Amino acid sequence: MQQVWIYDTTLRDGTQGEGISLSVDDKLRIAQRLDQFGVHYIEGGWPGSNPKDMEFFQKAKELSLSHAKITAFGSTRRQGVSAEQDINLQKLLESGVETVTIFGKTWDFQVTHALKTTLEENIAMIYESIAFLKEHGLEVIFDAEHFFDGYLENSTYALETLAAAERAGADWIVLCDTNGGCLPQELGNIVSTVSQHINIPLGVHCHNDSECAVANSLAGVQAGATQVQGTMNGYGERCGNANLISVIPNLQLKLGFRCVEKEKLQQLTSLSRYVHEIANVAPPNNQPFVGRSAFAHKGGMHVSAILKTPQTYEHLEPEQVGNERRVLVSELSGQSNLLFKAREMKLDLDKSNPVGKDLVQKIKQKEHEGYQYEGAEASLELLLRKDMYDIEDSFTLESFKILTEKTAGETMKTEAIVKLRVFDQVVHTAAEGNGPVNALDNALRKALEHHYPDIKDMYLSDYKVRVLDENEATAAKVRVLVESSNGKQTWSTLGVSTNVVEASWEALSDSILYLLLDAKQPIAQEQEKQRSGITNH
Amino acid sequence: MQQVWIYDTTLRDGTQGEGISLSVDDKLRIAQRLDQFGVHYIEGGWPGSNPKDMEFFQKAKELSLSHAKITAFGSTRRQGVSAEQDINLQKLLESGVETVTIFGKTWDFQVTHALKTTLEENIAMIYESIAFLKEHGLEVIFDAEHFFDGYLENSTYALETLAAAERAGADWIVLCDTNGGCLPQELGNIVSTVSQHINIPLGVHCHNDSECAVANSLAGVQAGATQVQGTMNGYGERCGNANLISVIPNLQLKLGFRCVEKEKLQQLTSLSRYVHEIANVAPPNNQPFVGRSAFAHKGGMHVSAILKTPQTYEHLEPEQVGNERRVLVSELSGQSNLLFKAREMKLDLDKSNPVGKDLVQKIKQKEHEGYQYEGAEASLELLLRKDMYDIEDSFTLESFKILTEKTAGETMKTEAIVKLRVFDQVVHTAAEGNGPVNALDNALRKALEHHYPDIKDMYLSDYKVRVLDENEATAAKVRVLVESSNGKQTWSTLGVSTNVVEASWEALSDSILYLLLDAKQPIAQEQEKQRSGITNH
Repeated sequence: MQQVWIYDTTLRDGTQGEGISLSVDDKLRIAQRLDQFGVHYIEGGWPGSNPKDMEFFQKAKELSLSHAKITAFGSTRRQGVSAEQDINLQKLLESGVETVTIFGKTWDFQVTHALKTTLEENIAMIYESIAFLKEHGLEVIFDAEHFFDGYLENSTYALETLAAAERAGADWIVLCDTNGGCLPQELGNIVSTVSQHINIPLGVHCHNDSECAVANSLAGVQAGATQVQGTMNGYGERCGNANLISVIPNLQLKLGFRCVEKEKLQQLTSLSRYVHEIANVAPPNNQPFVGRSAFAHKGGMHVSAILKTPQTYEHLEPEQVGNERRVLVSELSGQSNLLFKAREMKLDLDKSNPVGKDLVQKIKQKEHEGYQYEGAEASLELLLRKDMYDIEDSFTLESFKILTEKTAGETMKTEAIVKLRVFDQVVHTAAEGNGPVNALDNALRKALEHHYPDIKDMYLSDYKVRVLDENEATAAKVRVLVESSNGKQTWSTLGVSTNVVEASWEALSDSILYLLLDAKQPIAQEQEKQRSGITNH
Repeated sequence: MQQVWIYDTTLRDGTQGEGISLSVDDKLRIAQRLDQFGVHYIEGGWPGSNPKDMEFFQKAKELSLSHAKITAFGSTRRQGVSAEQDINLQKLLESGVETVTIFGKTWDFQVTHALKTTLEENIAMIYESIAFLKEHGLEVIFDAEHFFDGYLENSTYALETLAAAERAGADWIVLCDTNGGCLPQELGNIVSTVSQHINIPLGVHCHNDSECAVANSLAGVQAGATQVQGTMNGYGERCGNANLISVIPNLQLKLGFRCVEKEKLQQLTSLSRYVHEIANVAPPNNQPFVGRSAFAHKGGMHVSAILKTPQTYEHLEPEQVGNERRVLVSELSGQSNLLFKAREMKLDLDKSNPVGKDLVQKIKQKEHEGYQYEGAEASLELLLRKDMYDIEDSFTLESFKILTEKTAGETMKTEAIVKLRVFDQVVHTAAEGNGPVNALDNALRKALEHHYPDIKDMYLSDYKVRVLDENEATAAKVRVLVESSNGKQTWSTLGVSTNVVEASWEALSDSILYLLLDAKQPIAQEQEKQRSGITNH
C-alpha cells in the first residue's frame, strides 16, 4: 500500500477562516490530538508574523508527540535582502522546529504585479532561502503558491521556480491551488506533468472555492503527489482548505493508499467533533463521513432496505470511521446505543431490564429538549445511576439569588447567595464573582466545601455556551457544557434552559454530584463510603 | 457553447435532508424562483408517496413559468403488476405534468436482495413502465438507481437495464450515484463507457457522501452527460445531493458549458440565500461562490495584494455570481485592511490621515483584549465614525441592576432595572426576561422606545457567546456577538468582558447606537437628522 503523508495546517491556515480563533492552549490540545490520530506534519503557525505563534512553538516543545513533526510556516526571503539577514527566516530558525514550510511565488504575474520584482530575483529568493534553511539542517517543504494558475499562464517559468527549489535541496515541493479555483481533471493533468520534471516528492494544497478541494486533493494523489495538505473539517480562509476528515478516508478506504493506521481511522468522527468543539463551531449534521446525518436514514423504503443490507444505502460501514448508523424512526437503535453506553460505564443494564426502556424514553425526551449527551457523559452516567440505583443527591437546592450591578464608570459587581440542604443541615452563604455563573460557582463550592472536602481539589476546566435556536436570539434556549477536573480525572456535564444561569446551575451541580458519586467505586460500597465520608469531616 | 440541462430536485430529494421541511407554499415559491433563474427541470415531488406532493402539482399548474418544466417522480411498476394497474404510475399521470422521472434498479444485487425478484422481471419492469408513460405522450427521464455500484459489480447487467430503457423510448437516462460513494475519476470513466453504448442523452445524479458530489457532477459532464441533477445548496438525504449552486458556475464560468443565461448567473448568491431563508437554514459563511466569506480576505498580506489586483486571491470576480468582496479586520491585519473597510463604509479615511494611524493602534489594542471585528462590522463602523466625526452617543448608561432568583421547584425569575440618560432626561425603568441578557435587552428597549421609535422595528436575530480563554472556565473572558435586524438591514455588534452580562450590555448598546447612527445618511446631515428626529418625538 502506497503511503501518503498528511500535513495538517488547521493551526495556521485553518485559523484564517472567518470566525475561527484558537488560543495557544487550544492549539496545543489540537496538536496533541492530531498526533494521536497519526497525522505526519502539524503546521503550528507563522512565527515571523505573530508573537502568539512563537509562544505556541515554545510550549509545543513540551508536548510528547509520538509521531508527528511540528512545522513552522514562513515565506522566502524578501527581495534585496540576504537570507541570513531576513527576519522572517530568522524567526523560523528561532522557532526551534526541525521542519519548515516556506512559500514562494511561481506565477510570473504575481512576481511582477504583487511582489513587484524581477522574475530572476524571485528565483534567487526561492533558491537562497531554501539553501539557507538546508544549511541549518532543517527539513524544508516548499509551498509553490498559486502554482496551478501560474502554470496555466506561463508553464516554463512556473517549472523553473520548482527546479530552483529542487536544486536548493528542498525535501518536498507542494503545489498550491491558492485561489481554490481549480477543477480536478486539469489539476491532475498538471501534477502529472510536473512529476515528469521534478525528482523530489510532490504534495498538493487545495482550497475549496469551487467546492472541489477534496476531489482536487484526490486527483493530485492519483497523479503522483504523496503529500496532502489540508485542515480539520476544512476550516480555512474564504471557503476553507481541503477537508482532511474527508480526504483521509477517501484515500485509505476507497483508493487503497495508506495515510494512518487502520484502527486510527475509527477515531475520525471523534477527532472531527473534538476540533469542532475546541474551535466552538457547531458540527454540521451533513458533514461527510462524520456528521450526525452521514449515516442517518429517514424512514420508509430506505430504512427497511438498510435493515436487510446496509450497503444498499451506505457507501461504507459507519464503524470504519467511528460514526454510527441512525435510523431516524427506530426505537431499537436508541436502546442498543444506551445498552452499549451502560456497558462502557460498567453498569448492569440489559434488554430485559424495564428501567432500560424507561431510560430510553427519558433520554429521548431530554434530547428532544436540546440535551446532547455526546459531550457530557458524566451527566448521562449520573442520570443512569440515579435511576438504576435510586441514589440520593449529596445536596439539594433550596434557592439561589444573583445580583448583578453596573454603574457607569465603575467595575461591574456580581454576588450570588445560595441556600442548600446538605443532609439535615441548611447551608446559606454568599460569594462574589466576575459574572453571574462565576459567582454562583464560587458560592456553591463555598457552601459545600465543609461537608465535602474533595471539592477543594476540583476545578472547572472549561465552560461553553451554545445557543440552540439562534433565530430566537437572547430569548433562545442555550446549552451549557462544563468540563471539570480534579487533577486526576476530567468529566463533562451539561444543562439546558432558556435561562443561561439556570442551564449553568444544572451543569455545575451535575458536575459536583458526579464527583461525589465517586464513579470508581462499585455502587453499593460507594453509597456507604459517601455517607461515612461525611460523618468523618 | 454546449448546453447542459439543469434538473433541480430540491423540492423532492432536498427535503429528504434532516431538518429540511417545506410546506406546499414554500415549494411553490422556490419553484417560481428556480424558473426565473433559468433551471430547466423542477422536480416537484413524488405524487405516489405523499398527498402533500399531489397538492403541489395541483397548485403548480397555476404558476406562470417562463422556462422550466415541472416534473413528477416515481418508481417503475411493482413486480407482478401490469403498468396500467400500477397505482404509482397512475399517480404520475394524475399529477398532470408533461415530464416524469422514474427510477429503476440497475444493480443485480439490489434486484435479488432488496427487491427480491428476478433479473428478467426487473428489466420488464423498466421497459413496460417507460413504454406505458411514453404511450401517454410524456417526456420520460429514467433514473438508473445505484448505477455506478451496479456497473462495478456486474457491468453487463447494468448496461442491459439501460438498453431496456432506451428501447422503451426513454428521453433521458440519468446515472445515479445513490450511495454517494463514487470518486470523480472512476465516475467519469464509467459515464464515458456508457455513452458508447447508449444513444439517448445521459445525465448524472450525485450525492455528497465522499464530499465529491460537485466534482463528480463535473466529471460526468466532461465525460459526456448533458443533464445534471442536484439541489439548491446541496440539501438532501445524509450528506446531501450535488450542490447546483456550485455546479452551475463551475460548468459555465470554468468549463465553458452553458447552463443558464449569463446575466442570470449574477442572481446565484441571492437565489442561494433565498432558498436558505425559505428552508430556515442559516447560510454557511464559507459556502463556495455565495457565502459571506467566499470573497472575504483576512491576512494583511492578502489584503494589500487584493487592493492591487483582485485575481491574486480570487478565483473569479464576485460580481459574476452576485456576491461581494469583503475585507476582514482582524489581528492578522494592518492599515490597508482598515482603509479598505473605511472605503466600503464610505468614510473618508486615507493613509495621510493621522486619525487612521490612531485607529489602527486602537483596534489592535482592542483585538489584543479579545475583540474581533470581522464578525461585528457595525461595532467597527461605530468606532470609526465616533473617532472620525466626534459623534455623541444617542444615550448613555447611568446604571443597571439584574436580579436572578431561583427557588427549588419554581420557575426562575429574572428582572433588570436600567437607568439611562437620554439628552437631558433620566429614564429609569425595569423589565423581566428569561435570562439576565434577555431582561436587560427588554429593559433597554423599553427605556428608549419613547425617544427613538425606530427601535420598535428592531429585533435581535442572533446571539452568540464565545469563551476566550476556556481554561479559565467561568472566570474567563467572553466575547458576545449580537446580530440585529430591522427587517430591511442586518448588522452585527460585539462586546468583551470577563462578565458575560457586561459583554452583552456592550453588544446590545452598540447595536442600538448603530441603528440610531442611520448609516445611510452622509455624516453631517445624519447628526442633524438624529437631533431633529429626537425633538420631534
